[in-house]
Formats: sequence, C-alpha cells, structure tokens
Amino acid sequence: MSNKFIWTKKDLLGLEYLSAEEINHILYTAASFKEVTTRQIKKVPVLRGKTVVNLFYEPSTRTRTSFELAAKRLSADVINIAVESSSVRKGETLIDTGRNIEALKIDIIVVRHSASGAPNILARSVRSSVVNAGDGWHEHPTQALLDIFTLKEKLGRIEGLKVSIIGDIAHSRVARSNIWGFIKLGAKVTVCAPEKLIPVGIEQTGVHVTNDINEALEDADAINVLRMQFERDSKLAFPSALEYFKQYGITSDRIKKCKKNIVVMHPGPINRGVEMSSEVADGANSVILEQVTNGIAVRMAVLYLVALAKKPTSSLPAKVENM
Amino acid sequence: MSNKFIWTKKDLLGLEYLSAEEINHILYTAASFKEVTTRQIKKVPVLRGKTVVNLFYEPSTRTRTSFELAAKRLSADVINIAVESSSVRKGETLIDTGRNIEALKIDIIVVRHSASGAPNILARSVRSSVVNAGDGWHEHPTQALLDIFTLKEKLGRIEGLKVSIIGDIAHSRVARSNIWGFIKLGAKVTVCAPEKLIPVGIEQTGVHVTNDINEALEDADAINVLRMQFERDSKLAFPSALEYFKQYGITSDRIKKCKKNIVVMHPGPINRGVEMSSEVADGANSVILEQVTNGIAVRMAVLYLVALAKKPTSSLPAKVENM
Amino acid sequence: MSNKFIWTKKDLLGLEYLSAEEINHILYTAASFKEVTTRQIKKVPVLRGKTVVNLFYEPSTRTRTSFELAAKRLSADVINIAVESSSVRKGETLIDTGRNIEALKIDIIVVRHSASGAPNILARSVRSSVVNAGDGWHEHPTQALLDIFTLKEKLGRIEGLKVSIIGDIAHSRVARSNIWGFIKLGAKVTVCAPEKLIPVGIEQTGVHVTNDINEALEDADAINVLRMQFERDSKLAFPSALEYFKQYGITSDRIKKCKKNIVVMHPGPINRGVEMSSEVADGANSVILEQVTNGIAVRMAVLYLVALAKKPTSSLPAKVENM
Repeated sequence: MSNKFIWTKKDLLGLEYLSAEEINHILYTAASFKEVTTRQIKKVPVLRGKTVVNLFYEPSTRTRTSFELAAKRLSADVINIAVESSSVRKGETLIDTGRNIEALKIDIIVVRHSASGAPNILARSVRSSVVNAGDGWHEHPTQALLDIFTLKEKLGRIEGLKVSIIGDIAHSRVARSNIWGFIKLGAKVTVCAPEKLIPVGIEQTGVHVTNDINEALEDADAINVLRMQFERDSKLAFPSALEYFKQYGITSDRIKKCKKNIVVMHPGPINRGVEMSSEVADGANSVILEQVTNGIAVRMAVLYLVALAKKPTSSLPAKVENM
Repeated sequence: MSNKFIWTKKDLLGLEYLSAEEINHILYTAASFKEVTTRQIKKVPVLRGKTVVNLFYEPSTRTRTSFELAAKRLSADVINIAVESSSVRKGETLIDTGRNIEALKIDIIVVRHSASGAPNILARSVRSSVVNAGDGWHEHPTQALLDIFTLKEKLGRIEGLKVSIIGDIAHSRVARSNIWGFIKLGAKVTVCAPEKLIPVGIEQTGVHVTNDINEALEDADAINVLRMQFERDSKLAFPSALEYFKQYGITSDRIKKCKKNIVVMHPGPINRGVEMSSEVADGANSVILEQVTNGIAVRMAVLYLVALAKKPTSSLPAKVENM
Repeated sequence: MSNKFIWTKKDLLGLEYLSAEEINHILYTAASFKEVTTRQIKKVPVLRGKTVVNLFYEPSTRTRTSFELAAKRLSADVINIAVESSSVRKGETLIDTGRNIEALKIDIIVVRHSASGAPNILARSVRSSVVNAGDGWHEHPTQALLDIFTLKEKLGRIEGLKVSIIGDIAHSRVARSNIWGFIKLGAKVTVCAPEKLIPVGIEQTGVHVTNDINEALEDADAINVLRMQFERDSKLAFPSALEYFKQYGITSDRIKKCKKNIVVMHPGPINRGVEMSSEVADGANSVILEQVTNGIAVRMAVLYLVALAKKPTSSLPAKVENM
C-alpha cells in the first residue's frame, strides 16, 4: 500500500470485486482524508465542479447523510433523489433512470437498491461512476471498508486478526461485505448466529461457522455485532428479541471473558438490549461512534478515487461482466 | 440573434409571451452554457450569492433535478420546497407563500403548479424572478426550449422545418409550449392524436391537425412524441395502451417510411411499448438523451437571463397583465 | 451592547437562559448580517467548511428554509434530516441520534422536536452546538429574537414599550419565548386570550393578563398576534374560528382605536379572517414580511455566534443543568 498505486476502477460495487491491494489503497486514501475532517475548515476542493447523485430506492438517513457530507467536504455538488414509490419514477426502468442521470453529466451515482446486483446493472449501463450504498442482501462495501479502517486504526493491522461477525448473517449485506474484506486482508473470520440465520454454503467463503456465542467470542480480537431486525427478516428465526438477547446478546459479563482489548463494532443503529447491552455499546471496548466518524473519511476516499480513476477499466471481473 | 440583444424580462412564464428574438436569445445563451457542462469543472460563478427556490406543488424528480443542477452549475444556492399536501403550508395562499419567499430575499422562484396560470399570478405578486416549471395544461416553457434547442443543434435551423407533435395534445403543457415556440420560429407544426385528445380550437394557433399517424409522419423533419398517461388523463380517449400503440405507437416500421434523418424527440420518461417502441427510443434517430443534457444548458440560460435582466420590464404583455 | 462583548455559549436553547446583554449581542450581530442580505452577492465566508444539520422531528417549511438559507449565506454546508416517522430512525433514541450526528463532525445541530426540553437534552449530550428551532410548547427562541429585532428596528428601542401578545398563549412556544425576551429587555408585556388559552401561573413571568382585547390594544406600542390552530390545540377553547375573529380578531376598526404607529407582528402563516383581517395583515402597521426578512439575519447571527463561541461554557444555568 503506497501512494504509487494507480486506481483504475470507475465504480465501487462490492469488496468481492476488489483486490487486497485495492482495498488497502482505499484505506490509505481514507487516512489522509480523515485528517481533513479534523481541521477548522473541513473541506478540500478536489471534486469542485463534480456532481454526485444519491439515488436511494430504499429509505436511508445514516448512509445517505454520510455520503452527502463526504461529497460536500470534497466540494462536490450533491443532488438527493429518493425513489421510494414507483409513482415517482412513473415506472421507468433502472437502466433508463441511469441513462437519464448520465445525460445530466453526473460524475458519480451513489445507489441503494432492494435488489441484489442493481448497482452492477447500473454500472454497466452508464459512463458515470457507480458506488454501491447497499443492494439487497448482497453487499454494502463502504460499511465494510469503514469497519476495516476502524479496526486497523485501533489494532494496527488486519492480517492474522480473529474477527467474529455475530447476528443475522443470512439477511445482512454488511456481513457479506465484511467477510470479503476481512478475508482478503488475511483476517480469520468466524460468523455466529442461530442456525436459521446462517446462509447455506457460507463456509465456501472461507469463514468458520458456529451457533455458539462463547466460541465466537473466545480469542476474538474484534467482534462486529449486526443489527437484529425483529420487525422484518430476523423474526422467523427466533421467538423474541428477549430470547435472542439472552442467548446471543453482547453483555458486560460476556465481554469480561473476552480478550482484554477486544474491539466491539456495530454498523448502527443499535437495538439496545437486543443484540447488545447499553453498557457494552457505550463501554471502553466500543468503537461504534468512531466507525461513524471514519465512514466520512472512507466515503471521501471512495468518491475521490472513482471520480478521478486513471485510464478507467471495467469495475467487474470478466466472469461477472458476462453474467 | 446576437450577443447585443438585451434581455429585460424578469420572469419566464411561457413561450406564448416571448418574441422569436427572445427565444433565439435564450438558445444563443444556452449554447455557451452547454460548453461549460463539457468542462472538467462544470461550474461558473455567474450566480454566486444568488438564491433559487424550487417551489413544487406537484411531485417531480426530473424537472426539479434539472433546475437544481442548472442553478448549482451557475454557483447559486438552491432550496427545495415540496408542497404536496395542504397541511405543509397550513392553508397559506399562493400569493402569501410568494411574498414570504420574496421576503427571504430569494432571487428566483422556479414553480410547478397544477393550476394553469399560477406562475403568472406569482410573478405579478413578487419582485423575485419567476420561472414556470409546468403549470396545469398550460405551459412548460423550458421543456419546449430544450426541444427546440436540440432540434436546432441537430438540423441547423428551425425555420421551414416540418415538426409533428404526436400524443395526448389535450392534456399536455409540453405540447402547448412546443406549438408556441416552433410556430414563432417559423416551423410548420402538425399535431396528431385520437380525436378526443385534440383540444377544441387548437387550429387557431396555426397548427395543422390530423388523427392519421401516417399523415403526421410523412415528410416530417422531426417528431415530438408525448407521454401517454393511461393511468390518468388519457384513459378516457382510448380503450387500452396496447390499442394506442397499434394505432399511434412509433415503431421501426413506421420510422422506415419517414425521411431518413427524421429526428425523434420525447420529453421523458418513455412508456416503452406504449407511445414508442424500444427500438426507436434507443435508435439512431432518437435524440431523447441529448434533450436531457440540453435541458441543463437551457435552464442555466433561463436562470441567468432572468436573474440579471437589465431594466426589468413586465414579463407579460399588457393584455395578459390586465386579465 | 458593543462589539467588545464575548459570546461564550455553545448553544441557543431558549431566551429563558440568556441575559439581556446576550440577547442584545445577538441583535447587534444580526444587524450587521442584515446588511449582507442587501448586497448583490448575499454571502459571506465566515462559516466556510462548517456543517449545519437541520434535524426536524416535526414538519416545517418556513423555519427550516430560513435556517437553511441563513447557513448557506454564511457559506456553511447544510444537511436536512426530516424525522417524521419512527421507522426512519428505526427507534433510535434522541441521544443516540445526537451522538451519531456529533460523530459526523457536525458543527451545529438545529433541532425542532415535539417534546419540550428535547434540545436541552441534546445539548448536554453532544459537543456540537445545538440551536432550538422550536420544542413542544416550550420555546422558539429565534422567532422571538426576530420579533424583538423587528420591533427595535421599527421603534428604536424595546425598553419601556408596551407589547401585547394576543392569541393561544397556552399552546404557543412563540408566546413563551416572546415573554422571556421582551421582559428581559424591559418591555411591559400583556398577554390576551380567552380564559382557557391562558396557561395557569403565567403571571409569575411578570406579564399582565387579560381576556379583554380592548384592554390589550389600548396604549399598546406593538401587538404580536399568534396563529390560532383551530385544526389542533385551539379548538377546545372556542366554538369556531368565526366566533374567535369576532371577539379577538384584529381588524381595521380595532386598529383605528390604537396608537397611530402601533406595530403589528405575526409569526406566520396568517389565518386571514381568523386572528387578523387581510386589511391589517397587508396594512401600513404590519411588519409581518419584515419579520420574515429579519429572520434570516437573526439566524445568521445565532449560527455564527454559537459556532465560534469563545471558551465555550455551558449554555444552561446550573439549576437547569442538574435537572
């Protein structure tokens, strides 16, 4: 990882499609942008005159706000398009929407969509850069990048670390991007959830699978605790949030048995008393708010790199291209 | 048309109220702004410190986004106000809303309203410039200006061209603004639709009227194909979208019988397979995405001209003023 | 009041917590910002690189727009977050939301909330500055500051003036902030409403209370007429809007019996024919639109002062801090 690396991809679609070197280059770039956000004037003119569209097919406040801030701190102009009801787009297809946005001379489209692979389709249809802000249960690459950035900042490295991802793995794009990213950088990844929340075949990604929370916590250098969505997907797997908390919730008692400096991450927003107790969320091991801070720096890096990609090449490997 | 023309109108309310010379001056100004949007830094400081309010009483993504981008590329600040439910404005009248916006020292109000003539009322009530972004079935002047700009860019002139407007003429503000604009610049305009979608007395504007699609296509230099709104207004006139497509839809077969370089326009979003086939929409004669691109340049020109109008005069002729 | 005063509070939570000297310093600062809004380029770079979040838990167009414009005219970046349904925040607490926003390195949070005291809680939880844009029936300090600014601009002073606040005092945060502000600056304040719309114990703030509109108007130098919300809170107190207008509505006839230069204020939007006739709203004594204009200057002053507070101290007196 050095500043001699030349970034060539026009899009960021998922960590599956990036090399370790590319991931490290994003982290390296994010570190220098993080310094910007500590200045009195938290703004650099590197994307002045560029335009970013936030095209959100699912409601989002946190991710949209983080991208909007990142773009503004790079001096780009930002347009928010919330596409929550089909009537708004009058039935226009994703590709037609993309081509119309491209025709507006938009440099970067940040897209969130309920369909896995939607950003890939968009990226192939337009010359604008496409950044995936979460697609179905597929990937949420900037979330994983900020998780990795935060952990590396905390422990100095990723390689050789033992990272456990705990929660609804089956319905989590955050889990999927985390797995790709941490494994590519040489961490040992365990996923831990009730049986019904483990997707079939997940072992093939190289992760260790367990249903036992104690096994997941033992020797872990870091845990990434996923949000349980009892109001949505997770409800099928477990009788109640209370039951889940009893069996899998991260409590002070459980943390006391872990490595002393175990790093506790969570993508937010936290369900206090469901996947994690308040003591842990606000405790000394938690880096949850640092993750939020680092999200800006990581997204600044991603927007900057894709917008200024040298000799841009396809962002997907040939196999995926020919899907 | 030259750069010696001095623009004096504070508002853009409709093409009905503009002279051919004024329309040409907007096109001339738009051409120079189009160049700006091809630069690396797509931004000029001409409206720095000015404020534009997008006051939309009807939902809109495309037109609002285009105006927002145009304003930002002129370095203006933009505020979006979506007034979709009466509760938001707590029953305030249009004139009170306008005077409040004026009191905020807003330079330009871009307004879309379901009532024909609403922008005219607003323009008479405030010193701020008012730009009509679509009012009822009355006018959508910037759409017509971008249609004219695109056709002129493609064919080098407007005068003497044969332009056919096809679709729901009765419920289309786009049609109305197109008719005013093209006729003032010397084109021969035909409107073509099923009988029930032709407004009574439309011949008085100087257009030729037909219900026969073949007559509309024959000898046409350009066609402007309107969106059919079978979910709304158009449904009364025709049994089904399929039936409409069969009788009036623009297909490759129909295009093959036209002039070789016939220009195909559509204000978007397209109903593929209703008013136009995908082959035509994406084909060599289509300039639909160029229209989107040109929309930015035309709106930059309009915002620039009304904001910096010299010795501003009333934007409406005396007759209309005294309505 | 001079420019040697040093502002130290990081927040603006209510006029209850400010000294007369602090209120006067805001007015003094607002006067210089008002001059900015009369320039061709209505913008100063004093908050460049700072970020303002408008965090609105209640819908608002007027106040949100005014704060957004104020921030942009100071060259700050602005992010709007509308939290109208709990689903948007997925049940996150106010404090968690605040800490997340703080982690985004936001300089100022402008908050509107239906719960009285919510901004106080937020201010204690974050290092970011917090500006109250209206909380429950508690305070709406920037509205009162712009009322005071406008009256002082008109009559040259506040001390010794007789100011009557007329309308639904019980359910009005505007009334409460007005009372604190005007009394601290030495005005004599009368509140006038039907009995049921006078909150219990209001006399303890030092105001004179009456149910008689004639008494409230007699000798008044200024009146601040509140919006009657017959669709909400006010309906319990009175049979109908028409009945209210007859007994308490400000009409030309009533104004004729007042001091010749009586100043008529209203926070907007006006219910014409309910709390005030159109003749009065648009008449020579009305400063209602000047209030709107001054709102920008006052909010620019507040954002500027809290963002650049020297040696920031707590914004609440010890008593409130320890609540």
